[in-house]
Amino acid sequence: MSKTYSPEEAEALVHSHDPEHPANLICDLCREFYKLGWVTGTGGGISIRKDELVYLAPSGVQKERIKPEHVFVLPFAQSSVPKPGSKRDFIRVPAKKGLNESQCTPLFWNAFTLREAGACIHTHSQHAVLLTLLLPRNAPSFRISHQEMIKGVRLGGNGKTLKFYETLEVPIIDNTAQEEDLTESMAAAMEKYPNAPAILVRRHGVYVWGNTWEQAKTQAECLDYLFEIACKMLQNNLPLEGDE
Amino acid sequence: MSKTYSPEEAEALVHSHDPEHPANLICDLCREFYKLGWVTGTGGGISIRKDELVYLAPSGVQKERIKPEHVFVLPFAQSSVPKPGSKRDFIRVPAKKGLNESQCTPLFWNAFTLREAGACIHTHSQHAVLLTLLLPRNAPSFRISHQEMIKGVRLGGNGKTLKFYETLEVPIIDNTAQEEDLTESMAAAMEKYPNAPAILVRRHGVYVWGNTWEQAKTQAECLDYLFEIACKMLQNNLPLEGDE
Amino acid sequence: MSKTYSPEEAEALVHSHDPEHPANLICDLCREFYKLGWVTGTGGGISIRKDELVYLAPSGVQKERIKPEHVFVLPFAQSSVPKPGSKRDFIRVPAKKGLNESQCTPLFWNAFTLREAGACIHTHSQHAVLLTLLLPRNAPSFRISHQEMIKGVRLGGNGKTLKFYETLEVPIIDNTAQEEDLTESMAAAMEKYPNAPAILVRRHGVYVWGNTWEQAKTQAECLDYLFEIACKMLQNNLPLEGDE
Amino acid sequence: MSKTYSPEEAEALVHSHDPEHPANLICDLCREFYKLGWVTGTGGGISIRKDELVYLAPSGVQKERIKPEHVFVLPFAQSSVPKPGSKRDFIRVPAKKGLNESQCTPLFWNAFTLREAGACIHTHSQHAVLLTLLLPRNAPSFRISHQEMIKGVRLGGNGKTLKFYETLEVPIIDNTAQEEDLTESMAAAMEKYPNAPAILVRRHGVYVWGNTWEQAKTQAECLDYLFEIACKMLQNNLPLEGDE
Repeated sequence: MSKTYSPEEAEALVHSHDPEHPANLICDLCREFYKLGWVTGTGGGISIRKDELVYLAPSGVQKERIKPEHVFVLPFAQSSVPKPGSKRDFIRVPAKKGLNESQCTPLFWNAFTLREAGACIHTHSQHAVLLTLLLPRNAPSFRISHQEMIKGVRLGGNGKTLKFYETLEVPIIDNTAQEEDLTESMAAAMEKYPNAPAILVRRHGVYVWGNTWEQAKTQAECLDYLFEIACKMLQNNLPLEGDE
Repeated sequence: MSKTYSPEEAEALVHSHDPEHPANLICDLCREFYKLGWVTGTGGGISIRKDELVYLAPSGVQKERIKPEHVFVLPFAQSSVPKPGSKRDFIRVPAKKGLNESQCTPLFWNAFTLREAGACIHTHSQHAVLLTLLLPRNAPSFRISHQEMIKGVRLGGNGKTLKFYETLEVPIIDNTAQEEDLTESMAAAMEKYPNAPAILVRRHGVYVWGNTWEQAKTQAECLDYLFEIACKMLQNNLPLEGDE
Repeated sequence: MSKTYSPEEAEALVHSHDPEHPANLICDLCREFYKLGWVTGTGGGISIRKDELVYLAPSGVQKERIKPEHVFVLPFAQSSVPKPGSKRDFIRVPAKKGLNESQCTPLFWNAFTLREAGACIHTHSQHAVLLTLLLPRNAPSFRISHQEMIKGVRLGGNGKTLKFYETLEVPIIDNTAQEEDLTESMAAAMEKYPNAPAILVRRHGVYVWGNTWEQAKTQAECLDYLFEIACKMLQNNLPLEGDE
Repeated sequence: MSKTYSPEEAEALVHSHDPEHPANLICDLCREFYKLGWVTGTGGGISIRKDELVYLAPSGVQKERIKPEHVFVLPFAQSSVPKPGSKRDFIRVPAKKGLNESQCTPLFWNAFTLREAGACIHTHSQHAVLLTLLLPRNAPSFRISHQEMIKGVRLGGNGKTLKFYETLEVPIIDNTAQEEDLTESMAAAMEKYPNAPAILVRRHGVYVWGNTWEQAKTQAECLDYLFEIACKMLQNNLPLEGDE
């Protein structure tokens, strides 16, 4: 960790009049995601990395009511993938009692380290969950082609955009009792599927990332659209791949 | 009843600039619940207990247009479960003519007395009602397991959170012609199912509670999510329990 | 027509700072109805009668963008049911060119004269339309019982509220090429079904009324809820009447 | 091109306090369309032509966050249908780096030149896409009759409105790998179906136009409503044409 912050400097990290500041964006985007049904019941969230700092929403709170002063700030440089609640060099911890960092921290870190992502979004969208239920129990991934919205998704989450007729593949991993226990299987899936722009978690939701928050959000929307249309197609016995 | 209130003191109970004041929260949350389709057609609502006072929305009015001055205030200490319209020690009755206290008062009281809840939410969500219709007519309860959103629900509504692989059970009681006539069967179900975080009412809706309004709202959202996904699973012949 | 209005008096009829003034309410409610999907594509609307005046939204304009100055004012006293575009004693016509009174005028009038209604709402809700398509082609009415939301509906639209176990009946009439041609069949259905709180129009939508705008809106929401749950029940082969 | 613009004049073209100015409308309408699910994931958009100027949203950006200064202005007079990225007499290009004109430009031009439209809307609505999937693979068009909402649609997009009992026909063309490659097949479909008010693109979305933005928006809403009800009818085995 290259820099140390005085308490005043640390506090200043989440206060800005710029609506594009990560602490403001996290609040704004969580409100938007709540309206989409992605983060109800305190589930889901977003983390943004800017240079050497990672901004994190707190865990277990109403995501649509987060304020900038509730945001955690961590150094990106860590000796290992951080575990929630583990001792760590926090830069800024909210003063409000009872706030804990997101349980998804190590999963967000997967995106930051394995894909050099600048933002990672986690949703509990019903389209994602229903899709993992409608697909065969042993399906290793969700595959779809010949949809215009595929063109908004990037190989690996931050590479080239896919083409209309190409097959998008999103791995599906099994859920675990503790969210942090997904860390290894998510990392393994990301390594096995280097082109995957996201990871679906059966009976749980999805993790999506991108170089920037705009790229992560755009892909989260494109993927959610594809999950939704795929559910409808499966319920109408339409094949997900090909153009017939 | 330990304290008496002058008319000015009683009136002041619903006027505050604090958005977290119960009278303001009731208005704010009812607007939010309306957008979710939980309290359309004047149905449903929320009651918040703070210390020795209970704040109640009025009955039969458009829930998304309630103002703080429409809120009733009652003492929590009552010689018996209060019946709507029965003589009672009101602390504050709205000045506007034609406003009556919520018909759900005795049902909210069940949550306050049997679970020591600090807030109780009643919705007419279509997901709850459709679920009670899709389940077998004689099903005593709704049971579901292996869903991430189960982890946002607490045993008994304010105990430990459930685990992903544990079975959530919500009793279902039959509806009655008069809402207050649900009082006894709801109480009986709460006693028979001490771990239940909510009570479903067939062809009617759901009652959900928590220690605080945040806990009640979070669980109402998690449960509504689970009711919705369960309806979809039943319509696709997927089992609600287990991980197959 | 007992009173004449100077141009200034007529113009003043639609300008008020009171949000409950009919001209303001029409704009506000149309925005709300748009969000519910009831009045998209310029369809649907609302008319409010206050004492001897009737306030009408214009026809064929985006209902979510109406301003008070676009509202028509007519005298309630008319020698016959008014036809759109017919010569009539308008009190206030909007100055903006291209605005025409609602095509639904004679249908609103049915509610005002046959039920002494104070407000009438017309929606193109998909739930209403799909219901008329899912029911048998020759079904004279939609019937449902044993739903909590029935209790928000009044006999005839402004009488006693129905009970949970009672059967709500809403007549269905066939659509016509011209909206005004529905006038007679709607009136006939209202006379044949004096307890009906609304009229469904096959492949078109619904007309709902009440003594006041609050009563009309509440019933429109309860009925729309019932149309929606009925569609889901029919698609799952569940009977609409009875408690089995 | 009859007129040249100084840099200041060009810049002034997108700055106005008038909410009805094309640059403001594009931002406002894109926000509205986002809420309807028409332009998520940066897809879809709108172009408005006013006199000899065409206003265009940028490509590949979040449509609900566009600001007037992001809007492109082109002369309507072009020697040929413009290709995205091709050299062309731009009048105003946004200063912000990374903004490109909409990929839909040549498709919007089809509406401007072949139908003399004043506005063209492109959506990725799931109703449109699902409809193209539910209809037979070789269906050349979507046909529906006997729906009230048909009456909001105009022959050719800006002619006479259809009647309730008339058949609306919207051609369906196949999607292509590059959006601009749709230009010719869209133009061919518009010429083959002179009465068509829109073009559906299989597995992609829809293009709708009108003389004005109001007319285009109204028809986009009516058509989207019809796409949605048609999907429901097909899923319930109800015929789309006729009144049985």
